[in-house]
Amino acid sequence: MTDAVPDLPASLAVLGLLANCELAAFSRLAADAERAPDLAERIELARLGGEALARLERVAVRVAELDADLEQAVQPFLGTFGEFDERTPAGTWWERLLKAYVGYGVEEDLVRLLAHTVDAETRELVLDLLADDRHSALVVRALTTATDSDAVLASRLALWGRRLVGEALGVVQRVLVANPQLRALLEPALPDGDCVQQRLFAVLTGEHTRRMARLGLTA
Amino acid sequence: MTDAVPDLPASLAVLGLLANCELAAFSRLAADAERAPDLAERIELARLGGEALARLERVAVRVAELDADLEQAVQPFLGTFGEFDERTPAGTWWERLLKAYVGYGVEEDLVRLLAHTVDAETRELVLDLLADDRHSALVVRALTTATDSDAVLASRLALWGRRLVGEALGVVQRVLVANPQLRALLEPALPDGDCVQQRLFAVLTGEHTRRMARLGLTA
Repeated sequence: MTDAVPDLPASLAVLGLLANCELAAFSRLAADAERAPDLAERIELARLGGEALARLERVAVRVAELDADLEQAVQPFLGTFGEFDERTPAGTWWERLLKAYVGYGVEEDLVRLLAHTVDAETRELVLDLLADDRHSALVVRALTTATDSDAVLASRLALWGRRLVGEALGVVQRVLVANPQLRALLEPALPDGDCVQQRLFAVLTGEHTRRMARLGLTA
Repeated sequence: MTDAVPDLPASLAVLGLLANCELAAFSRLAADAERAPDLAERIELARLGGEALARLERVAVRVAELDADLEQAVQPFLGTFGEFDERTPAGTWWERLLKAYVGYGVEEDLVRLLAHTVDAETRELVLDLLADDRHSALVVRALTTATDSDAVLASRLALWGRRLVGEALGVVQRVLVANPQLRALLEPALPDGDCVQQRLFAVLTGEHTRRMARLGLTA
């Protein structure tokens, strides 16, 4: 375990970033649950919030195996995506759903890329945790049902999606500026090219386009 | 579906009321977690929110055993304690903690009393779920630490506690007016006396006084 010392900070940084995503996801899903227009959706969102916590606990177990504690790992990233939340106040229930889908999607993609550069056990855990698609499935189901019969809503949400991804990418940029070690970790995980940020944004934008397509919306 | 309501066993009504408490507790704890002044408390409150959900799932299992579904059982009580939340906006973190402690305490006491009148298996489950004391323990720890060295805060919180219990009892009263079947269920669970509400309030106020004493505050 101690042989892995040079690897430790990288693994811990990625786990800390993921833990912060899960804490933020928990708060967001819990708030969404409270505002859900019907009870079935409320219960489902609350359950998804519980799943985010369950993922946080699995992150905590791995952090402990690396001889650190969860608070220590999360602290540097705390509130990282809070700025995204503040800059994009959602007006309607549909906007809220799309915001969680786009915002959490970009966060996940970033963590997934970073995971490729850390120790195998941490990588496996992170990729396994990020494979949970239930929240996306709920959003896709709810939004496609709503937009199928409402072209005006669809075009408004497409516009909102563009605003959201712009803000999310801005936050990612600031995270990388504030954490040069993450920037260095990303380098080998990205396709060839000149500038890390440009290559990263190409990947993140591609994933965003794929997610919007799942909703039948133009990115 | 609406024909079935009068036939719903008392057990389902009590489970529905408890499920609503747990849903509300989840939302409240998640919101508290987001506002917690330090990370350790934030994580602890988020975990307690996860526990409220785990209790909700155990309620759902029992509801299913009674051939009903969770939504059907919760629906009549949905938002019951939302009114309490709206009428008592908490100004500070300490006020928030005390509000959750007092509000959830009164809800729990009501459900505990009702549980005595339902089938043995449901009763055992409900009493087991209500035995979880971790949230109270967190609040007691945080508030006694703060008030030990601050007599002004202690007397302010004692005043806030009186306001809170008054509002909580008002909500209980409205729940009983709106759900005469619950009122009938309570009758055999209460000490002798004339009026159900008076006897109920004596029990609830007694429990509240005991809870405030745990904080070292006058009820």
